[in-house]
Amino acid sequence: MKNFRMTIQYEGTRYHGWQVQGNTENTIQGKLQQVLTSLNGSEVEVHGSGRTDAGVHARGQVANVKMRDDLTCQQILEHCAKYLPRDIAVIAVTEAPERFHARLNAKSKTYCYRLWTSEIPNVFERRVMTEYTERPLDVERMRQAAADLCGTHDFRSFCGLRRFKKSTVRTITNIKVEQIGPEIRLTYTGNGFLNLMVRILTGTLVEVGAGLRTPDSMPEVLAALDRSAAGPAMPPTGLCLMEVTY
Amino acid sequence: MKNFRMTIQYEGTRYHGWQVQGNTENTIQGKLQQVLTSLNGSEVEVHGSGRTDAGVHARGQVANVKMRDDLTCQQILEHCAKYLPRDIAVIAVTEAPERFHARLNAKSKTYCYRLWTSEIPNVFERRVMTEYTERPLDVERMRQAAADLCGTHDFRSFCGLRRFKKSTVRTITNIKVEQIGPEIRLTYTGNGFLNLMVRILTGTLVEVGAGLRTPDSMPEVLAALDRSAAGPAMPPTGLCLMEVTY
Repeated sequence: MKNFRMTIQYEGTRYHGWQVQGNTENTIQGKLQQVLTSLNGSEVEVHGSGRTDAGVHARGQVANVKMRDDLTCQQILEHCAKYLPRDIAVIAVTEAPERFHARLNAKSKTYCYRLWTSEIPNVFERRVMTEYTERPLDVERMRQAAADLCGTHDFRSFCGLRRFKKSTVRTITNIKVEQIGPEIRLTYTGNGFLNLMVRILTGTLVEVGAGLRTPDSMPEVLAALDRSAAGPAMPPTGLCLMEVTY
Repeated sequence: MKNFRMTIQYEGTRYHGWQVQGNTENTIQGKLQQVLTSLNGSEVEVHGSGRTDAGVHARGQVANVKMRDDLTCQQILEHCAKYLPRDIAVIAVTEAPERFHARLNAKSKTYCYRLWTSEIPNVFERRVMTEYTERPLDVERMRQAAADLCGTHDFRSFCGLRRFKKSTVRTITNIKVEQIGPEIRLTYTGNGFLNLMVRILTGTLVEVGAGLRTPDSMPEVLAALDRSAAGPAMPPTGLCLMEVTY
């Protein structure tokens, strides 16, 4: 068997997330496994770098899959281009070392959250942005707060699973807050993210930008180690997994 | 009555084009008239700069509409943002002179046709690009041919209506052919375009790029004054009305 590494893009709008789960047919992993199994002849398992939730997009999801020795990267690319639905694409395939595992070997991930703050709707990017027009957002305040979230912290306050039993310590190496016209784009890079973590971080930073929290309040929120100390999880629409490094 | 000028964006994918026609409810003009009539209280008619066909998009369609004197531009914007479907947006409203007519006063229009030439599908822009992977396209050849299409010509060969009775003379002031990674973007500016004209021009230029026609063959195609001399009309997906000037 060869171990193939794939880079995958998807518009998550109509999927129940990355991971195959019970009867839910409509998952990215499920679609990929179906199409790759038909090429391989026998069943394959696609290992993603991590799950993305229902409605979340990816421009650089990485996965590995073990397939027949005689298959080439080009054959996999072509088969996927032909048989995957148009909202999922395998954009690169390389042969990886036998022991390469997309989840276990991931070093860092970059997620992007895109907010559309204009009263004028964005027709062409509405599926990949979250509209936020309730209050004006002060980007400088968001940047100040974001700086205090960077570093190695226990992010339990930002974890969507209240009874999560494993370590909730993670390292965020960078949070970039950009204003691009009426769009505010938050780009998070870190060694890993907890369940809903990026969406809760964004919901909290939005509250800072909106004046509902002070820019210097992040250390308190972190110290609380309690989900109720942070802001709400933003909707999945604006979230996209941009890159995974190894 | 005040005469309002509106700039409109839409993703045309799920519409039967701009123009209200018989029983076809699902048109851009129809949706706008419905929403603006509800604001105005009595029926309004929205005059677009021109029809766009089923599946064609717009980033800068212009229309005018006569509405009640006491209404403001801001009210119209807000009402449209609230009640239009998410794939149609009014992005600007201004008061126009009483005699302003979006179609009759239009001086020039710019259309863009986007071709995606990679074997790797484009997930995020698939609704606004036409995939073309049959043959490699030589952009330089397309540019040469495009130059001969600029100027004032009888474009009967490029008119989708075979028995069109009015003048088919039009002026194309510019055709820009850009290569942007795997995308080839053709931008056409002219004083007006015939039925299907941009899609037939693009189909003909694609044949030049693909080596099926010579770059110097455009004068002949024009001189033929016969639809069968030109190439096929490309699909609507890649076409977008970018700008109308007055």
